[in-house]
Amino acid sequence: MDVTAVLNTLLHGNQLKRSARTGWVQRGVPNAENVAAHTYGVVFAALVLAQVVEAEIDLGKALAMAVLHDLPEGLTTDIPTPAWRYLPPGIKSDVERMAMHEILDDAAYRPQFMAWWEELHVSASPEARLVHDADRLDLFIQALMYEQQTNNRHLAEFWAGAPLFHYPEAQALYHELRRQREA
Amino acid sequence: MDVTAVLNTLLHGNQLKRSARTGWVQRGVPNAENVAAHTYGVVFAALVLAQVVEAEIDLGKALAMAVLHDLPEGLTTDIPTPAWRYLPPGIKSDVERMAMHEILDDAAYRPQFMAWWEELHVSASPEARLVHDADRLDLFIQALMYEQQTNNRHLAEFWAGAPLFHYPEAQALYHELRRQREA
Amino acid sequence: MDVTAVLNTLLHGNQLKRSARTGWVQRGVPNAENVAAHTYGVVFAALVLAQVVEAEIDLGKALAMAVLHDLPEGLTTDIPTPAWRYLPPGIKSDVERMAMHEILDDAAYRPQFMAWWEELHVSASPEARLVHDADRLDLFIQALMYEQQTNNRHLAEFWAGAPLFHYPEAQALYHELRRQREA
Amino acid sequence: MDVTAVLNTLLHGNQLKRSARTGWVQRGVPNAENVAAHTYGVVFAALVLAQVVEAEIDLGKALAMAVLHDLPEGLTTDIPTPAWRYLPPGIKSDVERMAMHEILDDAAYRPQFMAWWEELHVSASPEARLVHDADRLDLFIQALMYEQQTNNRHLAEFWAGAPLFHYPEAQALYHELRRQREA
Amino acid sequence: MDVTAVLNTLLHGNQLKRSARTGWVQRGVPNAENVAAHTYGVVFAALVLAQVVEAEIDLGKALAMAVLHDLPEGLTTDIPTPAWRYLPPGIKSDVERMAMHEILDDAAYRPQFMAWWEELHVSASPEARLVHDADRLDLFIQALMYEQQTNNRHLAEFWAGAPLFHYPEAQALYHELRRQREA
Amino acid sequence: MDVTAVLNTLLHGNQLKRSARTGWVQRGVPNAENVAAHTYGVVFAALVLAQVVEAEIDLGKALAMAVLHDLPEGLTTDIPTPAWRYLPPGIKSDVERMAMHEILDDAAYRPQFMAWWEELHVSASPEARLVHDADRLDLFIQALMYEQQTNNRHLAEFWAGAPLFHYPEAQALYHELRRQREA
Repeated sequence: MDVTAVLNTLLHGNQLKRSARTGWVQRGVPNAENVAAHTYGVVFAALVLAQVVEAEIDLGKALAMAVLHDLPEGLTTDIPTPAWRYLPPGIKSDVERMAMHEILDDAAYRPQFMAWWEELHVSASPEARLVHDADRLDLFIQALMYEQQTNNRHLAEFWAGAPLFHYPEAQALYHELRRQREA
Repeated sequence: MDVTAVLNTLLHGNQLKRSARTGWVQRGVPNAENVAAHTYGVVFAALVLAQVVEAEIDLGKALAMAVLHDLPEGLTTDIPTPAWRYLPPGIKSDVERMAMHEILDDAAYRPQFMAWWEELHVSASPEARLVHDADRLDLFIQALMYEQQTNNRHLAEFWAGAPLFHYPEAQALYHELRRQREA
Repeated sequence: MDVTAVLNTLLHGNQLKRSARTGWVQRGVPNAENVAAHTYGVVFAALVLAQVVEAEIDLGKALAMAVLHDLPEGLTTDIPTPAWRYLPPGIKSDVERMAMHEILDDAAYRPQFMAWWEELHVSASPEARLVHDADRLDLFIQALMYEQQTNNRHLAEFWAGAPLFHYPEAQALYHELRRQREA
Repeated sequence: MDVTAVLNTLLHGNQLKRSARTGWVQRGVPNAENVAAHTYGVVFAALVLAQVVEAEIDLGKALAMAVLHDLPEGLTTDIPTPAWRYLPPGIKSDVERMAMHEILDDAAYRPQFMAWWEELHVSASPEARLVHDADRLDLFIQALMYEQQTNNRHLAEFWAGAPLFHYPEAQALYHELRRQREA
Repeated sequence: MDVTAVLNTLLHGNQLKRSARTGWVQRGVPNAENVAAHTYGVVFAALVLAQVVEAEIDLGKALAMAVLHDLPEGLTTDIPTPAWRYLPPGIKSDVERMAMHEILDDAAYRPQFMAWWEELHVSASPEARLVHDADRLDLFIQALMYEQQTNNRHLAEFWAGAPLFHYPEAQALYHELRRQREA
Repeated sequence: MDVTAVLNTLLHGNQLKRSARTGWVQRGVPNAENVAAHTYGVVFAALVLAQVVEAEIDLGKALAMAVLHDLPEGLTTDIPTPAWRYLPPGIKSDVERMAMHEILDDAAYRPQFMAWWEELHVSASPEARLVHDADRLDLFIQALMYEQQTNNRHLAEFWAGAPLFHYPEAQALYHELRRQREA
């Protein structure tokens, strides 16, 4: 084991604990969660969804994808949508891929981690779709909590659309969150 | 799928984002991480360790154990060691088991989650040992970061002992952290 | 005077400034008060109540009880109700008593402090009852402030019951708080 | 009992939970304590000192003085020394007295509270001296904690002088704090 | 250039980053802005207003006045209105003037800075009036943001009056803010 | 005056109060300043520098440039250097220019604001150079304050280089800061 490379990976991962979720901060949520806490929420939601969907899920792959899904933000921070609009389409994936390469450096597991990462971005596998649903579920759960705890009106825009989830179970959970919000 | 039971699980999991890591708070770390961010750190360390140890690891099981390892604290909070000393030996596991049961309630995956949980507590399997090592690695990485960023002298006691890790790779990473601290 | 023992007492007391009030934190109150600030609120409410109740109050005893009432939490933190439910009934007092003993150690005033502490727990004296009323008044005042300042809906459950105070004056103040809340 | 006047007193007291200790804030202490937490520290120190000094102390009077000693700051905030220098000498007491009158308004206990307040300012009684010593002890304990936890160099000036305490026991505790600081 | 005097000025200016806006803090706004952020808001509003009012504005003078307008608070903090009521009328300007003198010390630009400062206080020039309007616009913008983000009811009193602005354009912006608030 | 366009400008400017300075956050500075507070620091430093440099400075232009210099970050946030490295060289200016256009929209002063903005980016005029020096001075002053207040070792890298300032007066102030740091 290359101690330097592995510790380097871990320290980059630690950086997510110091990376705010920009969407909350820009809307004035006090003490908004960081990317590490959000990532936990996604891994947890993925673990739960994996138990309830009908598709056969490779749990190790799904949870690995979930924990890696925002790792580049340790280097780039959570750049908000308004900024990406000014950049060429598709460049977000390129930026994140380069960040992943820098984070993983010479570590022996780089090919494996990059493979999971790419598979997540293609969204073709059952595991990738599960993680995307988990990512959005954590977002809506958190938005509802912040609304119930601060009545922040700037969060209403998160609920403006009608998101389509890949799995009907995730869709049902979203509808229940929405129902509770309107209650 | 029982929507109510599943959402109930997710909302209990969300509670970790509002549960401080008591050890840091009692030692005056400003804006100390919460249990959710710590759990992310453990899952991430477990994913990395799983790549570098020689033992064969069931990745799905290991990451599931990691994400569940502090889930009871959503109900109980992170009760510190000084408090547990006043209670009968072994009661900590009982309390956490009861909290797990309450969190999982009637969800169909309760037997599976409880099985992982019990296996983690017995520490007999390669995956359980990996998660315990990951748990401590995240602790020492975070302690070092806080020391480097605030020079908090009350954190020195975390380094007083000579912890034994299950896997030599985790041990080597700990020694490197210790070396950097003394540099 | 045993300087070491007395300073030890004071440093344990200082720990309340780093002990959050868990009930607020679990409900997402940003920058929730700590136990030290709450204790101040109880001492102040006890001082005011002592002026307005008809019973004869030993003011020194009442204020001493008020300032000591959550002192064990410097060691144990503010363990929330959900956790105590998993433990044998009555064990909370035992835990707190042991913490008090550890905090006071060999200090000459330990018997006196313990006597106040025990009297408070028995709730038989006019002073003990006054402090219990003050403790709850500070809770409801703070809940109302947080509700008015953040509109946090998770605090509503504090108002679900119909608490009975020992003194009619405390009861009247509670009713006025409740009236302002509903206005 | 005049419910409105009494609740008015309690709400003014609650304001200390939202009043920062300016000396810490101006020196960049993150999440500095508020005046409520400091007041708790003074009441607690007064309770402890009352046990160890040789003078006979009216405990009720001493603790009442301690809990009231910064009450005006609920209206005025903790105006720092640099500002008072620009005002006529002695005006600080006048300002605080007027604030006390406004806070207590028509409450029946106003004469009693004002009498304690005036006695504290004259510093002639054993209880007043005890509270002044407690006030300074809490300051030095807190300064030491912040120094140990953040290594803030701007706090060094608090230790520049050689303060004289009224009671030898308080003086001894100060010297022990100073010794620990230099260790 | 007198390096010591100039750096002294800059360090006093830096102090505004550690000076809370007291009005927000007393009303329980979490993580309330500091005086530095407010001053930015005033300079920015002054720059915008200077473009849209009909009067001829010396931009350099207006922006200098804006950036200096709360500089004394680096020494005095933002003393709230309740405190000033207890002091002789007009003394606020005297206090701030003395603080300005202390901040600027022997710096060669002291006469120039003091002249701007005095002109702002007299409110006779178009630039002074513009800055006063900008000061209040930033206040109302911020109050609206906090209300939308936390629903804090204690901020309602800021909107109780019917403020008169010097420039009709500032008045129109205020009316639009008020309209949005009531929507 | 187009009330909607002008208020839109002001609300975008207000967003800087909710935009953290990423460099501090990534290095674990607790409660790091936001971009609004930093912008204040730059405007203030520019005002001071304008008094002491030999060049003739158009003060209105210099202060306008200073207050506008980070305005795009209200939309884009403070994207850190590690992220920009992954993007085509020169694209940072393009992104910021597009953000400026969106912020200023149809406001009548857009051409004027854009002209200042472009002049600042070219760095050819005495005013532009002054603002660049002021920007860096505020950075180093703040870094020194954070180091003195938390002893954060991760900030040392800010001092690794030997920055060249445009004006000898700014260079002298930097050297004095550096000297104080090493003292």
